[in-house]
Amino acid sequence: MSRSSASSSPFVVSASTESRGATGSNGHTAAKPSQLGVAVIGCGYWGPNLLRNFHESRDTKLVGVADLNPDRLAWARGLYPHITATSSADELISDPRVDAVAIATPVNTHYELAMRAVRAGKHVLVEKPLCHRSDLARELIEEADKRKVTLMVDHTFIYTPAVRKIKQLIKDGDLGQIYYYDSARINLGLVQSDVNVLWDLAVHDLSIIQFLFNETPQAVSATGMRHISGRPETIAYLTLHYGSGLIAHCHVNWLSPVKVRRTLIGGTRKMVVYDDVEPSEKLRIYDTGVKVGPHGDAREGHPDYRLRIDYRKGDISIPHLEGKEALKLEVEHFVESIRSGKPPLSGGQEGLQLIRTLEAASQSLFLKGQPIPL
Amino acid sequence: MSRSSASSSPFVVSASTESRGATGSNGHTAAKPSQLGVAVIGCGYWGPNLLRNFHESRDTKLVGVADLNPDRLAWARGLYPHITATSSADELISDPRVDAVAIATPVNTHYELAMRAVRAGKHVLVEKPLCHRSDLARELIEEADKRKVTLMVDHTFIYTPAVRKIKQLIKDGDLGQIYYYDSARINLGLVQSDVNVLWDLAVHDLSIIQFLFNETPQAVSATGMRHISGRPETIAYLTLHYGSGLIAHCHVNWLSPVKVRRTLIGGTRKMVVYDDVEPSEKLRIYDTGVKVGPHGDAREGHPDYRLRIDYRKGDISIPHLEGKEALKLEVEHFVESIRSGKPPLSGGQEGLQLIRTLEAASQSLFLKGQPIPL
Amino acid sequence: MSRSSASSSPFVVSASTESRGATGSNGHTAAKPSQLGVAVIGCGYWGPNLLRNFHESRDTKLVGVADLNPDRLAWARGLYPHITATSSADELISDPRVDAVAIATPVNTHYELAMRAVRAGKHVLVEKPLCHRSDLARELIEEADKRKVTLMVDHTFIYTPAVRKIKQLIKDGDLGQIYYYDSARINLGLVQSDVNVLWDLAVHDLSIIQFLFNETPQAVSATGMRHISGRPETIAYLTLHYGSGLIAHCHVNWLSPVKVRRTLIGGTRKMVVYDDVEPSEKLRIYDTGVKVGPHGDAREGHPDYRLRIDYRKGDISIPHLEGKEALKLEVEHFVESIRSGKPPLSGGQEGLQLIRTLEAASQSLFLKGQPIPL
Amino acid sequence: MSRSSASSSPFVVSASTESRGATGSNGHTAAKPSQLGVAVIGCGYWGPNLLRNFHESRDTKLVGVADLNPDRLAWARGLYPHITATSSADELISDPRVDAVAIATPVNTHYELAMRAVRAGKHVLVEKPLCHRSDLARELIEEADKRKVTLMVDHTFIYTPAVRKIKQLIKDGDLGQIYYYDSARINLGLVQSDVNVLWDLAVHDLSIIQFLFNETPQAVSATGMRHISGRPETIAYLTLHYGSGLIAHCHVNWLSPVKVRRTLIGGTRKMVVYDDVEPSEKLRIYDTGVKVGPHGDAREGHPDYRLRIDYRKGDISIPHLEGKEALKLEVEHFVESIRSGKPPLSGGQEGLQLIRTLEAASQSLFLKGQPIPL
Repeated sequence: MSRSSASSSPFVVSASTESRGATGSNGHTAAKPSQLGVAVIGCGYWGPNLLRNFHESRDTKLVGVADLNPDRLAWARGLYPHITATSSADELISDPRVDAVAIATPVNTHYELAMRAVRAGKHVLVEKPLCHRSDLARELIEEADKRKVTLMVDHTFIYTPAVRKIKQLIKDGDLGQIYYYDSARINLGLVQSDVNVLWDLAVHDLSIIQFLFNETPQAVSATGMRHISGRPETIAYLTLHYGSGLIAHCHVNWLSPVKVRRTLIGGTRKMVVYDDVEPSEKLRIYDTGVKVGPHGDAREGHPDYRLRIDYRKGDISIPHLEGKEALKLEVEHFVESIRSGKPPLSGGQEGLQLIRTLEAASQSLFLKGQPIPL
Repeated sequence: MSRSSASSSPFVVSASTESRGATGSNGHTAAKPSQLGVAVIGCGYWGPNLLRNFHESRDTKLVGVADLNPDRLAWARGLYPHITATSSADELISDPRVDAVAIATPVNTHYELAMRAVRAGKHVLVEKPLCHRSDLARELIEEADKRKVTLMVDHTFIYTPAVRKIKQLIKDGDLGQIYYYDSARINLGLVQSDVNVLWDLAVHDLSIIQFLFNETPQAVSATGMRHISGRPETIAYLTLHYGSGLIAHCHVNWLSPVKVRRTLIGGTRKMVVYDDVEPSEKLRIYDTGVKVGPHGDAREGHPDYRLRIDYRKGDISIPHLEGKEALKLEVEHFVESIRSGKPPLSGGQEGLQLIRTLEAASQSLFLKGQPIPL
Repeated sequence: MSRSSASSSPFVVSASTESRGATGSNGHTAAKPSQLGVAVIGCGYWGPNLLRNFHESRDTKLVGVADLNPDRLAWARGLYPHITATSSADELISDPRVDAVAIATPVNTHYELAMRAVRAGKHVLVEKPLCHRSDLARELIEEADKRKVTLMVDHTFIYTPAVRKIKQLIKDGDLGQIYYYDSARINLGLVQSDVNVLWDLAVHDLSIIQFLFNETPQAVSATGMRHISGRPETIAYLTLHYGSGLIAHCHVNWLSPVKVRRTLIGGTRKMVVYDDVEPSEKLRIYDTGVKVGPHGDAREGHPDYRLRIDYRKGDISIPHLEGKEALKLEVEHFVESIRSGKPPLSGGQEGLQLIRTLEAASQSLFLKGQPIPL
Repeated sequence: MSRSSASSSPFVVSASTESRGATGSNGHTAAKPSQLGVAVIGCGYWGPNLLRNFHESRDTKLVGVADLNPDRLAWARGLYPHITATSSADELISDPRVDAVAIATPVNTHYELAMRAVRAGKHVLVEKPLCHRSDLARELIEEADKRKVTLMVDHTFIYTPAVRKIKQLIKDGDLGQIYYYDSARINLGLVQSDVNVLWDLAVHDLSIIQFLFNETPQAVSATGMRHISGRPETIAYLTLHYGSGLIAHCHVNWLSPVKVRRTLIGGTRKMVVYDDVEPSEKLRIYDTGVKVGPHGDAREGHPDYRLRIDYRKGDISIPHLEGKEALKLEVEHFVESIRSGKPPLSGGQEGLQLIRTLEAASQSLFLKGQPIPL
């Protein structure tokens, strides 16, 4: 039935076909000397994606998975009969076949598990955010440096073709000087118990902003609201002030009837709209902007009395982006970083800076928008 | 060529046809005794809409228009040869045929012109916002009360069928308790010289919020940025905190490559998306929300460990709305208020409250988000 | 309230403002020697657009309007007090101030009115289609040639910036060889009594195809259905076969709940999607296609066993188009043709060819798709 | 990263997670007595979906897969190590553990493989269309009846929640009498070598129409074009005429730059738009239509001279549909049909009727639209 399929997402079938194809050609054979032994801790929502990618990568050998929930272990065994499935994280951390550990557990458990793995001399990939406190993040970084192991945070978005393309546009000066970064990341989402919506969703934007602009915010202001008793903020608005004049804003919401994943990036030359809900046309580049001119008529009542400014509306271009899965590229980068010993794009330092921003944001949130310097 | 027209907006032709039809049947005849004599001051961007509506209404008789710009007067004469077109506002204000004055000039001129008209015993309709300072707004209100004339602000949106429908949904309890009001009002807009983007665009949301919820904010927090030297803020974010637990946020931007006019209203029962860019399907009512349940499995690693909460996804309904022009309904309400002597829905007091909110917002904007109590 | 207006169509206000501006500067003064005197016959749906454009053009002087319906005349008088408004078409046709006559009456009256005007030595612009029978169209053409007057058909779409742009793309070879022209022109439309939906809607596509490809179809096949007793076909499908291998298809429907105005043009190099419902992004140019390659694996069961063909998915470009009204450009072309004596782009011959196609299509419709050679 | 995932299709992850979850609980254990042994022949594009669903169903036990391509077998082994993977279809057909055979090979091989399986006393599920000739389809039906085995065709769409919902609306009379069924099924698709685009894509609409209306077409007319030498038609238009006055039209195209899967169903009461590209809002029900009234003014020139007909524009409703995979429901129905011995919804007779329609359509295609009676 192929692309005339009832599924509106042809990528489902084809992608998995392709990937499993890769699987077929390496998956179930013994690890080649070059392969990195990997264990995944936490098999909840994100874990399965890590399992699949480490399983399919030619550079890694999936050794085991740990989870406290027997159902999840049974599920993992069903799909990966050849790997160790255990309720003990330590069993994997101490396993000599394991060179690297990927952690996909609740945020407040990241530090302890990551530290154990680092101390055991394992390379570590931690789901975002790195952990729930900046002081603990610093400890992790120091320990990793001491042990000479790679500590990387799973900032998935910076490995997407879309964000890579935006980065290139900025680098090439196509957008000119950046006016603003504005993002809405809302839908009917999983209201979490341990962290508020900023730590769950805005962290994606913070990692993208960090990657795109290499600039640390001077201050943050955040507002939001708790809508469910005993739960952290379900809706929040975050503004980041930068020295360069850039302003960034993130609107995150777990209680939206519609799913929106739209980022606007305005520059003096061009502007970009990045709509991540779009299956293929994720980026639109607008040759649009304003030009401040000397002419115009400011007499009261003149139809153009407000118009000392020219508006430029030009073509729109939608670049074709390859359909590669971000996590696949990320796993490649993780392996590369371990082999080269070079710091990864989303290393401990990057993870730390995000946590510091999130801590300041949560403080501002509590103070109803009071700006917090960084 | 009819509705298979090259125009993508069939309403253009038909609407104007219909309206001019009305014109034909009353426009150029002498005022009937029942008709209210109206003069329009300011023939820039919004003025022409006022002229057209007062010209077409059976309840009003367009007497004259004033503008400092000769081109605008020539334009007005071409379209309304029978009315007085003058560069002197006072000529109209003192004209005995004029019962009411509509003001559509730059914001910083509203107070002076409105005050002159009120003192001359004329009823006044002022383009939003009422004026640029709350103390002056108070003076206007007092003077109008003393003179027993109607003072109304042109809060156009509260007269739109879409906002009327939302009001009814809230009144009927269909949405349940309101969680949030979230609005994005962005496009490549006319950067103004006298007021920042909050005073130009957010004022619309403030008037809608005021109309829908009848609740005064306790505090506001605003952030934003100036992007053009010598101009006020071109992009801004405004959060309003309410005692009821409601949170409202407005995102306004004069430098967006795309035009967005979307408002989300989340309630415990249903949620509404109001997309004003949609030509006909402006409202979508989502039978969607969350239910906090006792069950669920919170064990770490469980796929649903975050899910003590149930998600409800139901039908979506798009109500049919009549295509009436808001300004037409507003003119009817203006006439009605004058005749009944009852305070209009968007009277001086409503206008004042908005200005007070905007003043606090501008203060917070200057203080990078510092919350300002009201 | 400006572009933050309640109206979702900012073009309404600005466009009419601009145009009336033009009005103001020429409308009500006496005709300049260079101006062409024009009368409009028929003031129903399309007539008002003709009135407005002839009124606003600097090259034409609107002299009068004729309609059998007193209400329509009253309406016209209200808007254009200075022109002759009469129930007698002949009064205008014989008026010496009238150099040209524009006809916007029901199709089955076109021939008689146009012939009278031509015989009176007037230039004529007839709403599409030229008339309801090809033999009568031939008579009109001969008479116009004899009288040396311009006979032009109101094929509005070929004067739109969008169609002009497509024409240029084809001319420049950007699309390569054309595979197909596929159009859907459907909505809840005015079911007519005198002509079926092909004559009302498909005629637009026929005029566009004629303009774009300069090729006469070899045969047509049409199917459709009558849904309302005593009315002609309300839905129809028309296929045009061409010698070059091009195939064209038009889907027209008066009973669709949604308005669709989408045309696909597929070429060997690029493909165009022309969506006329889009307010601004009417054209999308896809750098997409197929390449027939020698490689590929045709073994049964091979995942790519169907794939001896390569698929190319490249960037999409959305060209900026000026917002000019087609009818305005058309009026300019009409005047130009009269002055130069050169045949207009949409002259009698073009109108005749369309009628011949429509006659064949109606015949095929009656024969349930039987192909009719041309 | 959960639903804040880089993927725009959260369903990918969750769906497969859920389904594999099911797997985990039954997949790799021995067949329960109640389980049906199933073999899949053909592991190309559609085969993997059959494998997954038979693997995950609690009612079936996946026994083996056959494919001539070693790479595909390697891929299958990688994912389903416990099943037989062979290049010999007969090995599986003769396997006593196999109760039913699913065939997903090129159309021109369906008959031979299905016949062998039926003769071996196996129940058979064949990918659409049943086979490439109606006479052979009749043989299959007779043989299956003789052997008392279930012969079912994979008409996937009639098992989708969307089509089920439309069926119910029609049954309940919500749509009134049906005016038309109009479908566009176009995208940049796999140009096949053995069958034209009608047999590949229109077959889906034919199966939906058959399911919804239980009416056999009286005649068909089809037009189309070959664009790639040595390949069958890549674009085609098919009209079906019915006795009830219903008209159905399918537009299919393998060379479209955009993917469209939209079906309009117009009725006297309501109308439905079924957009299968929409991830969740697949159905829109319009309370829209026409009412033929006695009033109206038919005088020439009257603005409403065409309007003896009233237009009704009401609310739009978007029903919530469960996200179940159609193939899953179809597999359940296949098992059910085998157990009950009752003819399936898409049995041999249904498959035969579609082939007869496709044969007539191909004939009409060759005759450039000539209607072919059925």
